[in-house]
Amino acid sequence: MYNRSSLLLKVSPPTEKEYGLLAESQILFSFLHLPVAKKTSVESLLEKKVCAIGYELIEAEDGNLPILQVMSEIAGQMAIHIAAHYLQSGDDGRGVLLGRIPGIAPASVVIIGAGTVGRTAARVAIGSGAEVTVLDKDLSRLRELENIFHHQVATRVATRYNIARAVQFADVVIGAVLLKGERAPHLVTEDMVKTMKPRSVILDISIDQGGCVETSRPTTIENPVFLRHGVIHYCVPNIPASVARTATNGLTNALLPYVLEIADHGLEAALHQNRGLRQGVCTYDGSCTNPAIAKLFGLETRKISDLLFWMPEPQDI
Amino acid sequence: MYNRSSLLLKVSPPTEKEYGLLAESQILFSFLHLPVAKKTSVESLLEKKVCAIGYELIEAEDGNLPILQVMSEIAGQMAIHIAAHYLQSGDDGRGVLLGRIPGIAPASVVIIGAGTVGRTAARVAIGSGAEVTVLDKDLSRLRELENIFHHQVATRVATRYNIARAVQFADVVIGAVLLKGERAPHLVTEDMVKTMKPRSVILDISIDQGGCVETSRPTTIENPVFLRHGVIHYCVPNIPASVARTATNGLTNALLPYVLEIADHGLEAALHQNRGLRQGVCTYDGSCTNPAIAKLFGLETRKISDLLFWMPEPQDI
Amino acid sequence: MYNRSSLLLKVSPPTEKEYGLLAESQILFSFLHLPVAKKTSVESLLEKKVCAIGYELIEAEDGNLPILQVMSEIAGQMAIHIAAHYLQSGDDGRGVLLGRIPGIAPASVVIIGAGTVGRTAARVAIGSGAEVTVLDKDLSRLRELENIFHHQVATRVATRYNIARAVQFADVVIGAVLLKGERAPHLVTEDMVKTMKPRSVILDISIDQGGCVETSRPTTIENPVFLRHGVIHYCVPNIPASVARTATNGLTNALLPYVLEIADHGLEAALHQNRGLRQGVCTYDGSCTNPAIAKLFGLETRKISDLLFWMPEPQDI
Amino acid sequence: MYNRSSLLLKVSPPTEKEYGLLAESQILFSFLHLPVAKKTSVESLLEKKVCAIGYELIEAEDGNLPILQVMSEIAGQMAIHIAAHYLQSGDDGRGVLLGRIPGIAPASVVIIGAGTVGRTAARVAIGSGAEVTVLDKDLSRLRELENIFHHQVATRVATRYNIARAVQFADVVIGAVLLKGERAPHLVTEDMVKTMKPRSVILDISIDQGGCVETSRPTTIENPVFLRHGVIHYCVPNIPASVARTATNGLTNALLPYVLEIADHGLEAALHQNRGLRQGVCTYDGSCTNPAIAKLFGLETRKISDLLFWMPEPQDI
Amino acid sequence: MYNRSSLLLKVSPPTEKEYGLLAESQILFSFLHLPVAKKTSVESLLEKKVCAIGYELIEAEDGNLPILQVMSEIAGQMAIHIAAHYLQSGDDGRGVLLGRIPGIAPASVVIIGAGTVGRTAARVAIGSGAEVTVLDKDLSRLRELENIFHHQVATRVATRYNIARAVQFADVVIGAVLLKGERAPHLVTEDMVKTMKPRSVILDISIDQGGCVETSRPTTIENPVFLRHGVIHYCVPNIPASVARTATNGLTNALLPYVLEIADHGLEAALHQNRGLRQGVCTYDGSCTNPAIAKLFGLETRKISDLLFWMPEPQDI
Amino acid sequence: MYNRSSLLLKVSPPTEKEYGLLAESQILFSFLHLPVAKKTSVESLLEKKVCAIGYELIEAEDGNLPILQVMSEIAGQMAIHIAAHYLQSGDDGRGVLLGRIPGIAPASVVIIGAGTVGRTAARVAIGSGAEVTVLDKDLSRLRELENIFHHQVATRVATRYNIARAVQFADVVIGAVLLKGERAPHLVTEDMVKTMKPRSVILDISIDQGGCVETSRPTTIENPVFLRHGVIHYCVPNIPASVARTATNGLTNALLPYVLEIADHGLEAALHQNRGLRQGVCTYDGSCTNPAIAKLFGLETRKISDLLFWMPEPQDI
Repeated sequence: MYNRSSLLLKVSPPTEKEYGLLAESQILFSFLHLPVAKKTSVESLLEKKVCAIGYELIEAEDGNLPILQVMSEIAGQMAIHIAAHYLQSGDDGRGVLLGRIPGIAPASVVIIGAGTVGRTAARVAIGSGAEVTVLDKDLSRLRELENIFHHQVATRVATRYNIARAVQFADVVIGAVLLKGERAPHLVTEDMVKTMKPRSVILDISIDQGGCVETSRPTTIENPVFLRHGVIHYCVPNIPASVARTATNGLTNALLPYVLEIADHGLEAALHQNRGLRQGVCTYDGSCTNPAIAKLFGLETRKISDLLFWMPEPQDI
Repeated sequence: MYNRSSLLLKVSPPTEKEYGLLAESQILFSFLHLPVAKKTSVESLLEKKVCAIGYELIEAEDGNLPILQVMSEIAGQMAIHIAAHYLQSGDDGRGVLLGRIPGIAPASVVIIGAGTVGRTAARVAIGSGAEVTVLDKDLSRLRELENIFHHQVATRVATRYNIARAVQFADVVIGAVLLKGERAPHLVTEDMVKTMKPRSVILDISIDQGGCVETSRPTTIENPVFLRHGVIHYCVPNIPASVARTATNGLTNALLPYVLEIADHGLEAALHQNRGLRQGVCTYDGSCTNPAIAKLFGLETRKISDLLFWMPEPQDI
Repeated sequence: MYNRSSLLLKVSPPTEKEYGLLAESQILFSFLHLPVAKKTSVESLLEKKVCAIGYELIEAEDGNLPILQVMSEIAGQMAIHIAAHYLQSGDDGRGVLLGRIPGIAPASVVIIGAGTVGRTAARVAIGSGAEVTVLDKDLSRLRELENIFHHQVATRVATRYNIARAVQFADVVIGAVLLKGERAPHLVTEDMVKTMKPRSVILDISIDQGGCVETSRPTTIENPVFLRHGVIHYCVPNIPASVARTATNGLTNALLPYVLEIADHGLEAALHQNRGLRQGVCTYDGSCTNPAIAKLFGLETRKISDLLFWMPEPQDI
Repeated sequence: MYNRSSLLLKVSPPTEKEYGLLAESQILFSFLHLPVAKKTSVESLLEKKVCAIGYELIEAEDGNLPILQVMSEIAGQMAIHIAAHYLQSGDDGRGVLLGRIPGIAPASVVIIGAGTVGRTAARVAIGSGAEVTVLDKDLSRLRELENIFHHQVATRVATRYNIARAVQFADVVIGAVLLKGERAPHLVTEDMVKTMKPRSVILDISIDQGGCVETSRPTTIENPVFLRHGVIHYCVPNIPASVARTATNGLTNALLPYVLEIADHGLEAALHQNRGLRQGVCTYDGSCTNPAIAKLFGLETRKISDLLFWMPEPQDI
Repeated sequence: MYNRSSLLLKVSPPTEKEYGLLAESQILFSFLHLPVAKKTSVESLLEKKVCAIGYELIEAEDGNLPILQVMSEIAGQMAIHIAAHYLQSGDDGRGVLLGRIPGIAPASVVIIGAGTVGRTAARVAIGSGAEVTVLDKDLSRLRELENIFHHQVATRVATRYNIARAVQFADVVIGAVLLKGERAPHLVTEDMVKTMKPRSVILDISIDQGGCVETSRPTTIENPVFLRHGVIHYCVPNIPASVARTATNGLTNALLPYVLEIADHGLEAALHQNRGLRQGVCTYDGSCTNPAIAKLFGLETRKISDLLFWMPEPQDI
Repeated sequence: MYNRSSLLLKVSPPTEKEYGLLAESQILFSFLHLPVAKKTSVESLLEKKVCAIGYELIEAEDGNLPILQVMSEIAGQMAIHIAAHYLQSGDDGRGVLLGRIPGIAPASVVIIGAGTVGRTAARVAIGSGAEVTVLDKDLSRLRELENIFHHQVATRVATRYNIARAVQFADVVIGAVLLKGERAPHLVTEDMVKTMKPRSVILDISIDQGGCVETSRPTTIENPVFLRHGVIHYCVPNIPASVARTATNGLTNALLPYVLEIADHGLEAALHQNRGLRQGVCTYDGSCTNPAIAKLFGLETRKISDLLFWMPEPQDI
């Protein structure tokens, strides 16, 4: 049904206008982040029977999200350099080194979320010499972090009490809470932000999914920061766009296998063979196939496996 | 002769105007960097019989320069975060991540000089995931670096050929050549700069001592960079000033023992007892006591030990 | 049907002659590497209704190949010491140290494939001080490597361009591409070999499966190397045989659980209970049970689960 | 003058009674710790013209104290295991693990002094998973610690403010301040101890030299601890005695070269040749030869070099 | 059927008396260790139709046992500090440092079992400077250990020969063999214990499950050790109880998600939704639902899934 | 007196014939190793008034021997790869992997001497996965090794007992005892060699200075090994010659500063200014200036400082 030549590759989520320009029965391959999109955009996908595949939802065999992971690795690393920039005195900042000199307490970096963004941010923060605390609800993720970084990182269970306490003494707070296809919860409340040190820095990397800091709202690369309760907020949605060359290379590496599969076998066959690619499909032939999005916008869900004409054979021995 | 209450503490080198405001027989305790000062400034120190002690020349017992070292540790760490900033796409930059994602060549950071600045810059660059090469003329310093960082850093002898080759493929070049009380040599020539990649970044941290890159010239925190041969040059002389809070703490820690010694025993006694403090004296009672500076400005040198009234007793068993 | 006393244990794949000597309904437990065997050998297994189990195909619960893995760990480690030997001047070699002295570029080791062989080779190469690059098509394997070795290894996606580029500057190339039960693809082409440095060294460890370097062909322990386009090729198929004592200990440790299971319960029960052992069966009761081998030799495949008399009960709670 | 057969080797400092038993012109080779001995003991050494050599004062060529260092390495390591013992619930303790589990703040260990005791204690504390802070007045020692332990240890300059702050949140405080031949200063005051957490643990390893915690007083192996302000104090003077086997082996290794030198060449020659051994001499031929001890007890000092009959020839090229 | 308000939370296994006090249809949530309990206790659970859930059996999605794991992490770390205590001379011990000084063989720590207890014990033992050997039957677990600790740990396959050999030269033996819901096997025999060095120390952490050392029998915190064949045996069943504060925090973190799930949705729903919680159920509505326990006590097993009223829907795409 | 144009640079020590070919008053700059040379060679240097400077004796300011050090770094690294080669089965060897696979005891490498050769050999041996023991008489060198390699290396004081014990269980023994300008002592006796395992491997790298193993005698690159008491002996004197390309680069880097100094200022001035270069002079103007060599050959020593026309001015402040 879908013609593979209609495949449209994009890097950042389509704007409202771009949604309007899509053709009937087109294949759209892009970051989508539909939970923070407008309902009209989703409706336009359904009406035009677009097959919309969100990079951020494609799963590898091991359950990871390989495309999102590359972007997360870039964002996590960038976050620390960006924080270091806003900690400088230049922009009326705290004048604090994101690093370590003997005999003096180093900058304190608090990371909410121990996923890919959190882990890569932790790696660079540790490598810079900061004092790093990572909070997550999942003990096994914290354990994994301790196995990788040994005793160079402090871990805490992400209870309200622990978050409030860590944020209060932080020079930098990195919001790195990403839930598959859902809005991020507000783990850092406005009351917590009020207790923070003057000119400390918040980077809310989960702003793509609504943000995990109550006071954050999306900003742009042109005007990346705003001040709220004396705290610098950096909430640019698509951080990797700031290192376009690296991001393009990384995205290409991660996308290539999927694009080749569609190009070689056609969309339907690719979706049949590749369960992970199927996971990325948000709309197909006029139906919403992602339960979380459907629920959010009050739509019906249909299973993509019911919509495809033939199913893959079971693998066994 | 000198009254300890006349002690004037400064952080950054005096401006020409400030040199004019010094009192007769004052004790000036500051970063001086006289080799790049004007001759009139030096003459003013001599005429007013100021005892000028340069932080950057004070030696510890182990031959290190403890005050300079703290500032160098800050500058070295800042350098990598600053470079990361200018590698971003935002300012018409290369759009390259100063970090590492699997499967892609990371940014290449080349550091000229394996002293404190070079070593701390290397530490943060490695911690950020960059590919790091350090060049120095002294094999034993490179050996020491390999002992600290094991196989995470590449070292090369700083021959003209090796420098030219490394610079050509670099995303970032850090000039970190500091010679005690001398002008830095131009190890990176203009011809080498011409071969560099478009929008790669040079940070010349030795700009305090004249710079070790031929195309670099001092810039300011307000206008920190300029473009030459398509390469971004960052040449702010006093980088630690950008993290004023950390720099002040660090400087205080390092200076305190010397200030206490002068306050408790008077300047002469302190100079007698403390050979390392004596090393910092550039002018004393109208004479220039630092041979390198004297030579540079065509002045006579006198030994500080000849000018002091009494010498410390020899230590023995 | 199969008598457990007919179990024949071998270390290296049977020769053609040895295939001829097998008894009717014998159990053959050995490295087989059938994809590079002759068709007559396979036919002989089928005619005699031999149950042939290939060590290299036995799977653990986590999907790893535990027997092959031990041999791969040995081969990967050996590879670096062997390469160091052939880099010496003695045999008209390059005269290059596979190691690192301060100030000089170390030997460059390029490893194609990030599986067990590649990872252990990388470990020893890093430990020896070489500059190590690993290429693989799978990003998540490269990511895993970076987690283990941190920034001591460079990783690249194994595109044709990246392989060509890495090989050109290598002192040593290790071919470590192993696909389960398939011929290895020629990732290093003859044209790439032509660009290599004089007397650089290629070790093709995937020669057991046909080799991943176009110019490689099997050699023997007696005549282990040949020269092609000025490059030394080492292509001995069974490298672990060179450290017989260690290999025997390692193999015994890994095989013991399987042998005990067959001895205690009989072949059929062992195959029923142990899905991983079942994976190793290539021929059973006159049928080929491995799809890849069947396809290669134009045979019919039957599922081993259809040939066994009773199936294990499903596990559930 | 001294007969080498009169050499008396001891491990722990002589008791008052043992001082009484010394023979005329005997050579006493032992830990002495005279600054905390009674004046009568020193007088007895002088009257009997004993040559008393204190292990704790013998210097190696590099300025280290090799005998003391071995004992300090043992004491530093023991300290952490002892602290772990007293943190348990069993003895009405805090019930805190000296270690680390994911998601929970680990025990906080504060070490005053970055010498051998402090460094080895830090090593084991880090290895146990504790959160470790080391304070010292000397920036270069803290820097050295950061080079060894990278970012696994927090360092602070040992100001009164910093000590008070660290002690307040500590589960364990290790007093490890050793000054060559002087009484240790009271860096942790009684007021600071009062702020500590209930049933936290203080180990004052400098108790041999008077202790660096105001509330500490020597205890014994039989009654090792006492409670003061709710804080458990462990102040056993000779901690290595608790691991007698290891301590004896370690002491033997370190002493052997000195004993052999005296045995082979006689005391006078050994003292002539070996400047470091000379440093250990506290009394010689009825004179006190150690300035610090002489000052403490109001005695005259004579230089050991003046008392020896012949001096070593100067070494030169 | 079960009322969520009847939930009884305990930390240590109920005593016989406590089993008697349980109410009809109560929910018991505790460490149970039924394989070493009395049959009457199990019968009492069945008669009263208690839903008994054993912390030690609850599984996470990845197959780990999250509650047990936290306790095991504590026990493994404690083990090394406890061993260090009993190696001291004080209690008529060996007088050996569990640590490392240059030039002397460090204490040898042998760990039987490479699970969570073994791994965390190894981590602290390595961090203390001991020479550490870990034995396990499972090669892949040993491989994982080598990946985490690199070359700081020796691994051996846990054959009778290897265990006998390692134990003979050990200063400390840690028994850390835990099988899910089964008695631990006696891997260290009495004959092996007889060959051990005088006053060496055995800690049998698997004593909860019957012990893996033939000579071990449960001891108490009041009388923790006994001497057998000259070897000190420490066999306190619930080691984490010695650090009550840490253990409580750790347990709370791990239990919280399960308790909340039961509190929010009721027991039945929680068991339906959460397969791992279901794994922990030993008795339900008068039936034994754990096959291993049923077998041990000669009871019938029923599947918990058959006893619940409704089953969760299959998840699919 | 010496003409700088008469400077003769050599890499390996002159042969007897080459000594005969030297011109009157020539400057000879080479590895010399005179303690193992013939007396006639030394006499020829004296008669011809050659200024013979031995690379192996030139000292840096920190007391290291910079030229020898580079060669030692190469030899130490090569040693492990060479040992791995002779452990293989191929040459009737032990068939042992110089590496590590899980569950099996790795090869045991024993290194006698903790200088540069010993340290670099230890580094590669550790990196290869071997079990490494280093013995040295000097505790502080062993301590330094433990600081660099943490717990990955075992250290022992080099007593006869400890050496005998270590050698007995070794797969590889590396003799790395180098004394400045003296013959190496026979620390490994023939009796110890007799206890070694069949086909174990000895590499005596101190063979240049007479060897530290009693059974070793110089071999050649053509016939590098011989068998004695069943042990393979590898005693090629100039190991770095086997990696000529790397050795030449390394030597050039280290020599360049000295050659430039002689070329720029003439020999006498260079010797005056550079105390380290002076240390390398063995013969000068017909006199032997090295006390150790003079003693060995029964010659008179003269101080080089007495033979030079002018002495450098003292440096002071």
